[in-house]
Formats: sequence, structure tokens, C-alpha cells
Amino acid sequence: MTLPIDAFRTKLHELHDLEMIQSLLHWDMEVMMPGKGVTARGEQLTTLSALAHQLHTSEEFGRLLSEAEQQSGLSKEEQLLLAEARYDFDRSRKLPESYVRELSDARTASYHAWTKAKRENDFSQFEPFLTRNVELARQGAELLGYADHPYDALLESYERGMTTRQIDALFTPLAAELKQLLTEILSRPLPDSSWIKGEWNTEAQKQFTERVLAELGYDFEAGRLDFAPHPFCTHFDIDDVRITTRNEDTVFGLFLSSLHEMGHALYEQGLDKTWRRTPLSQAPSLGIHECNSRLWENMVGRSLPFWERYTPILKNLYNDARLADKRPEDFAAAASFVAPSLIRVDADEVTYNLHIVIRYELEKALIEGTLAVKELPQAWNAKYQEYLGVAVPSDAQGCMQDIHWSEGIFGYFPTYTLGNLYAAQVMEKIRSEQPDLDSQIRHGNTRTILEWLRKHIHKRGRKAQAPVIIAEATNQELSSEAFLRYVRGKYLG
Amino acid sequence: MTLPIDAFRTKLHELHDLEMIQSLLHWDMEVMMPGKGVTARGEQLTTLSALAHQLHTSEEFGRLLSEAEQQSGLSKEEQLLLAEARYDFDRSRKLPESYVRELSDARTASYHAWTKAKRENDFSQFEPFLTRNVELARQGAELLGYADHPYDALLESYERGMTTRQIDALFTPLAAELKQLLTEILSRPLPDSSWIKGEWNTEAQKQFTERVLAELGYDFEAGRLDFAPHPFCTHFDIDDVRITTRNEDTVFGLFLSSLHEMGHALYEQGLDKTWRRTPLSQAPSLGIHECNSRLWENMVGRSLPFWERYTPILKNLYNDARLADKRPEDFAAAASFVAPSLIRVDADEVTYNLHIVIRYELEKALIEGTLAVKELPQAWNAKYQEYLGVAVPSDAQGCMQDIHWSEGIFGYFPTYTLGNLYAAQVMEKIRSEQPDLDSQIRHGNTRTILEWLRKHIHKRGRKAQAPVIIAEATNQELSSEAFLRYVRGKYLG
Repeated sequence: MTLPIDAFRTKLHELHDLEMIQSLLHWDMEVMMPGKGVTARGEQLTTLSALAHQLHTSEEFGRLLSEAEQQSGLSKEEQLLLAEARYDFDRSRKLPESYVRELSDARTASYHAWTKAKRENDFSQFEPFLTRNVELARQGAELLGYADHPYDALLESYERGMTTRQIDALFTPLAAELKQLLTEILSRPLPDSSWIKGEWNTEAQKQFTERVLAELGYDFEAGRLDFAPHPFCTHFDIDDVRITTRNEDTVFGLFLSSLHEMGHALYEQGLDKTWRRTPLSQAPSLGIHECNSRLWENMVGRSLPFWERYTPILKNLYNDARLADKRPEDFAAAASFVAPSLIRVDADEVTYNLHIVIRYELEKALIEGTLAVKELPQAWNAKYQEYLGVAVPSDAQGCMQDIHWSEGIFGYFPTYTLGNLYAAQVMEKIRSEQPDLDSQIRHGNTRTILEWLRKHIHKRGRKAQAPVIIAEATNQELSSEAFLRYVRGKYLG
Repeated sequence: MTLPIDAFRTKLHELHDLEMIQSLLHWDMEVMMPGKGVTARGEQLTTLSALAHQLHTSEEFGRLLSEAEQQSGLSKEEQLLLAEARYDFDRSRKLPESYVRELSDARTASYHAWTKAKRENDFSQFEPFLTRNVELARQGAELLGYADHPYDALLESYERGMTTRQIDALFTPLAAELKQLLTEILSRPLPDSSWIKGEWNTEAQKQFTERVLAELGYDFEAGRLDFAPHPFCTHFDIDDVRITTRNEDTVFGLFLSSLHEMGHALYEQGLDKTWRRTPLSQAPSLGIHECNSRLWENMVGRSLPFWERYTPILKNLYNDARLADKRPEDFAAAASFVAPSLIRVDADEVTYNLHIVIRYELEKALIEGTLAVKELPQAWNAKYQEYLGVAVPSDAQGCMQDIHWSEGIFGYFPTYTLGNLYAAQVMEKIRSEQPDLDSQIRHGNTRTILEWLRKHIHKRGRKAQAPVIIAEATNQELSSEAFLRYVRGKYLG
């Protein structure tokens, strides 16, 4: 006889499969799909998401869940599984299918309007779609419910366990500290990193990237690296975790963004296979995911010990006269260049969080209704002036630069900064356990880092919430302190 | 208020989307997926096919169909749509979900066993899986029902409107004629085509292929060409029709198989958009699909006028001294070389159908139960001796060469030969309407052919069955006559 817990797990597996298939449809759309396929792909995604939603919110799903909950003698992990499944089920039931379909259709339409509006630098084309996306997000917040602020309901989708109030308490002083720090850093002489610009052999970059990723632990038999308009990491299974990248016209080329995505990928490849196809084998939040990507990209990949290891290898692959006199110090300094800039994804470790604070404040205001969509460009430009001292020359390079709002995604941006804060705490903890970490990195041995992450973060999956996992792993509650220590040490130390 | 026909069409659209998504999962598995992803992909395909089956066989689907059927004032095409949907629904309801799941799981397992068994040339590894596949196929035939022969039920999935009896009546004399013809052809001096062997610039091949495909009418904005272990064409929409190819070590490289797949792709890109996401915008059979691929690959792509057009272009792209003295006649002759051989997919226009007759006779016997799976290798080898005078050196190059049986597909093989027969009738008809067709081809103008196919075949979709479409389009009932005239004319004329 099938036990109730097993019958329910079968349903969870089906639901998981449908979600993974949606991810594949998205990956294909970005990486492989011919242009005209876009209409059908939108329809397919809507059909599939509606079907997944039907399955997830069905009476049958609820009945199987209840029956499993009533089974006696469940293990502790089975109980955790059911608690997480119950959380997802209850949340999912709050959204009617009509809303889910509408959201899916609106996203597809809006994404394409945004692409065109950005290309033509014409915010007015995007405005009605963005207005609709904000309305749908507000509607979603009401449907999902919240204690304090409608933004809480959205944030919960990406960083459960975190509230608008907590984010405010973290971000407001962080922004002030960073503005101050930025002024100090910029008052000192900066290394010349103009030499990194220009065209560099793409094939060499790709070889270098593949070599480094493999050495750091990314399993290419369970993943692949492709070119796409935007770098991203996606997964369809623990054993199928794919990265995309794009070429940048610097000596680092496609490398640094690949390293970032690899950080995400190592997380996905490191989840607990015992619980595959269930919520327990998922990351509990985007912030903790970003912790991994930031740690590898910034704290490892932009460090001097890392470039002591990899400078000779990269120079050898490039075989380019422009690099003849370049030392590891030059690579590390160029990778750590600080400058206020327009574009978030190109931002350095110091200013990056200011880009995030701006977006957070703006999207919170959009959701509250204290900022109208048509005033967004002006508000955006004002904040860039205020926080970064930068004049925004066009909406394409301003409030239309990011994909998130075009896909109706609000509440996601703060997780980038949370990731930076988590990463700094984690790295401080790893360093305290491994005093010779720099020497390990210098010798190409980063397995200590990966094993620490596997044990304290990856394997735990969703068996606890992100703030709990980080607090337990680092013996510290979340704060900006470790991050500010890291930045001060690196730039002013 | 939503009309019953529209409510039902919405369901058809959903079902169609799920089928297209399954095709994408397969395409990705062949073209992009990392090796370890295979387990999860099998699970995802099983989940999705079971879900599609549930949707298709649900009470709700049946109710919506019945309500639509009862609507008054339906157009003729709407009536056709409902008739086709009714046919599919009734057929689908004959297969219980447990059977569909079992079939999907068995296919995945069997495919992988076959891959390994073929690689290691060890039929005994594949035998239990093939035995299971035959059992499931026989079970499927019983579930689906048939008037005369269990093979009829399987054939109907691929070539509806055709029976085992009709295939016997066509194939038995065709095989005899072809054996006779082959003897005659081989008794004459053959052109030397050994010069085509060897390695040729892959990049040049790809460029050549892309150029020719675009000129013949394949829309790369609604498709793409990739490398895969096997050449195939698949579609996820009329506007997303993809081709795969592989490199062969001859001067034609990846070209001829791409041209074949392009024939399929032109069909899919030419379907009636009015009825997209419904059965009316589908090809009615595999044979009529193959008619298109064979027509373009063989009757156009292996002809002298075609090579009069494309020889200078190919020579220019290759820029290879080995081709200095080669004329269009040499290319056309090499593309039309005849020789009894082991491998179906490499076979020439004359012997190809003998490869099919062998497979047809064997799979019919497997389904009847007059041939045991463990005796298959011996039976295979005996037939290769009998029909082609060829000694089979290994099961890998013998009865394990094709993917079909490994995926539990029986009743498919005859459609290849039906495609050849259809194509010959179609080409004869087009020639009768266009006496200067060779001159058109010689000048790179093949639009007459494409337009004829669009009008008489592609646009009709499933609005009639394949034999009816071909008979109406060519004013001839299906027979081997046109094909035999074509082969005789080409090789003995």
C-alpha cells in the first residue's frame, strides 16, 4: 500500500517537474529560440503555469497533503517537508488561476514592449505595460496578504523571513555609510585600469572561463555555459544547472559574470539529492543564493590571491602583447576598480548596493502608490544624482536598464544587497576557520570554501529559512557590519 | 458569452501546447542537455505526457467537445476540426493513463539501454528492453483495436488511412522490382565517387547549407540549424521549426541530411496559421511529411540541374584544390551513387526502400508474435542477405542501427517508403504543370515547387487524410508506378 507521505511526494514531484519545465522554456527563449517563436512560447508558458497552478491548488493536492500530515511516525525531515509544502500550498491558494494567467500574459507582453522601448529609448512605450505590472503586483500583494506593508507580501516571494521594516533598518544606514566610504575611496589615487578595455580573444576567454569554473567545482557534465543577451543561471534538476554569459569588451571578457553565475550554479549542484523534486531541495531565498554568487565573484574572483593563481594562465591563453607587463596586482586592482556609474550590472562592489537602494526605494514607492509610473524616470534620475552623483543621460540607461520590472518582478532587488551582506558574514566565518585561506586560493585550492558552503548552506536546502541558516552558520545575526569591514579592509585597509 | 466551439478550442490549444513542450524537451535532450540531466528529463517527460493524457481524456474535455459538436451553424472547417478532435479523443481514451506512463518510462529506459548496447555491440543488453517494448506495442494495439491485423492499429498512429494489407500489396511487388532494378543498375559501369570521401571544411559546409536552405524558402527567423547525434526536424510552433544535422565525412558533409530535414521544416512552416494550435494545422501522416523531405533531398537535391546551380557556390566556399576539376555532373553523380549497404540512413534512392521493406517485415512479425525478439539479429541478417546481398558484420550495424524500436516505435518504418512513393507522384505532377522545371532549378528558382506544395499539401493540414490529399493533388491513387518510372529514368534512362 502506498503511504500517504509517498502519495503526496509523487504530487510534489509532478509539480516540481512542471516548474522545471517552465525554466527550460525560459532558458530556451533566451539562448536558442528563433525570433518568431516568441508568440507561441508565451502561450506555452501561460498554459504551463496555469496548469501548474491548477495542480498546486487542486482539492486533490490539498487532500493528499492533509492525509500526509495526519500520518503517524513521520521523520523530522518529512515533517519539515510537509510544513514547507503546506506553506507553499496555502500561499498558492491565495492566487486565483485567472490572476496567474493574467500575470503570465502581462509579463510576456510587457517584456517585449520593454525590449523595444529600451532599444528605442522611449519610456512612453513601456509606461502602460509597467503601469499594468505595478497594478498586478499590488493586486498580488492584496491577495497574498501582509501584516504591515504591501511590499512585505512581494518581498516574501523572494526573501521569506524578511520584512520591509527590516530592509529599511538595514539599507538606510548602509546607504549613508557607503556614500561616505565612496567619497573616501575616491579621494585617494586610483590605479589605472584603462588597459583592460578593448577587444580580447573570445575563444581564449571561453577556455579560461571553462577551466576556472571546472577547477572551482562546477560540474560541466551536469551543466553548460552558453551565450545569451543577459548572464543568468537556471536549473532543471540538481544534475542540469546551466549558466549563460555575454561578452564584455574588457580583459575579463565573459569571465566575471560567468563566475557570478557559477556561484549560483554551485549552490544548485550542491543541493540534497535525497529530497530532489521537493521543496526541501531548493534554496530558501534569493538572498542566500546571491550570497554564493557574490562570494565567488567578488570575494574570491576579485581578490589578489585568486589572480596570483590565474594571471599566468590567462596571459598564456590570451598570448597578447598588451599583457606583457601585467602582474596579478594589476588584474586584481582592475577587477576591484571603484567608480560611480549608471549601470547596475557593471557596478563595483562599493557602489553596487547604492544602485540597489535606489531601486528598492523606488519600487517600494510604486507599490505604496506614492510614486506614479509616469514620474519614475524623473525620480530615478534624481536618486542617481543624490546617491551616486551621476547624471542619467537616457531612460534606456536609466530606469529601463533592468529586466525585472518589465517582467512584473517587484521585491526582488533587495536580495542582491542581502546577498552581499550574507556573503561578507560567511567569508569572515570561513576565514576565521581557515587562517591560511589566501594561501589556499593562491595555490588553486578553493575546495575548503566549497565544502563549507555545501555543508552549511547548500545541503540544508529549505530545511530552514535563509536568515536562520546564515545566523547558525556564521554565529551572527544579519547586519551590514561584516560587509562594511570587508569593503573598508579592501579599499582603505 | 463564450461559444461552445471557442471554449473547446481553448482546450485544444492547451493540449497542443503540452505536446509542443514535450517536443522541446526532446529537442533539448538531443541538442543541448548535459549528460547527467537525463534522469530528470525522463521524469519530466513522463510527468508531462501523463498530464497531457489526463487533459485529453478528461470528462471535461469530452463534455466541451460534445457541446461544441451540438452547436448549430458551424462552418465546414469547424466541423472538420471537431471531427478530427473527436477522432483523437476517442483514440486517446482507449489508452489508460497507467499505460501511457508505463510507455514513457519504458521508452526512456530502453533508449538508454539501446545507446549502450549499440556502443558495445551487445544485443543481449538491449533484448529485455526490446522485448518489453514489443509487449507494450502489442498491448497498445489491443487497446486501440483493429479490424484485421494488430499492426494496423500501430500503423494508424503514423499513417492513418493505410492498412497492413495495403502495405503488403505495395511493398511485395516493389521489393521484387527494386531487386531487379538494382541488378540492372549494378551491371552497368558506375561513376567513380571515391573523391567525395575525406574531411571537408565544416564551416564552409554550414555556410553552404544555410545559404541553400534560405534560398529554397526555409525561414531562419522561424527556425534554426544545430548539430545533434541524429539529424531530425522538430517544431514547437509554425514559427519555431528546428532542424538538426551532423557531419558526414564526404564532400556533401552535413548538407544532404539538412536538406532532407528542411523538407520537413518547409511543411511545418507552411501550415495554415488560421488553425494554429489545433489538429487542423498538423500534417495528417508521416508518409506525407516524408514526401516533402524526400522530394527536396532526392528529387531536387540529388539532381543535375540543382548541382548546375550550386556547384560553383560550393566550390567557392570550400576553396579546396581537390575540387578543381569537379563539374556539376560529378556532384550529381556522386549524390546519386547506388550501392547495396548496411545502414539505412546512408542508403541511396534505389536500395533505401529495400531497407524499409526488411524492417517492415520484421516488425510486423514481432508484433504478430511470429518472430521472437531473441531471434531478431539472425532474421535481420538473413533478410539483408536476401534483399541486398549484404553480410551484416555486427548487430550495432545490423538490427540495432535504428533508434525507432529502442523508443518503442513500431509501424513507423513503412512511412519512409510511402514518402518516396508520394514524392514521385507529386514531382511527376509538378513537372507536368511546369515543363521547364529543370531550367527553373538550374537558375535557382524553386519557388514553383514550394508554392505547389504549400497550396496542395501544406495548407491543407489535417483537413483530409494523406492518401486523399495526394490523390487529389496528383490525380492518381497511390502506387509504386511513378517512383519506379523516376528511378528507371534516372538510372537507366
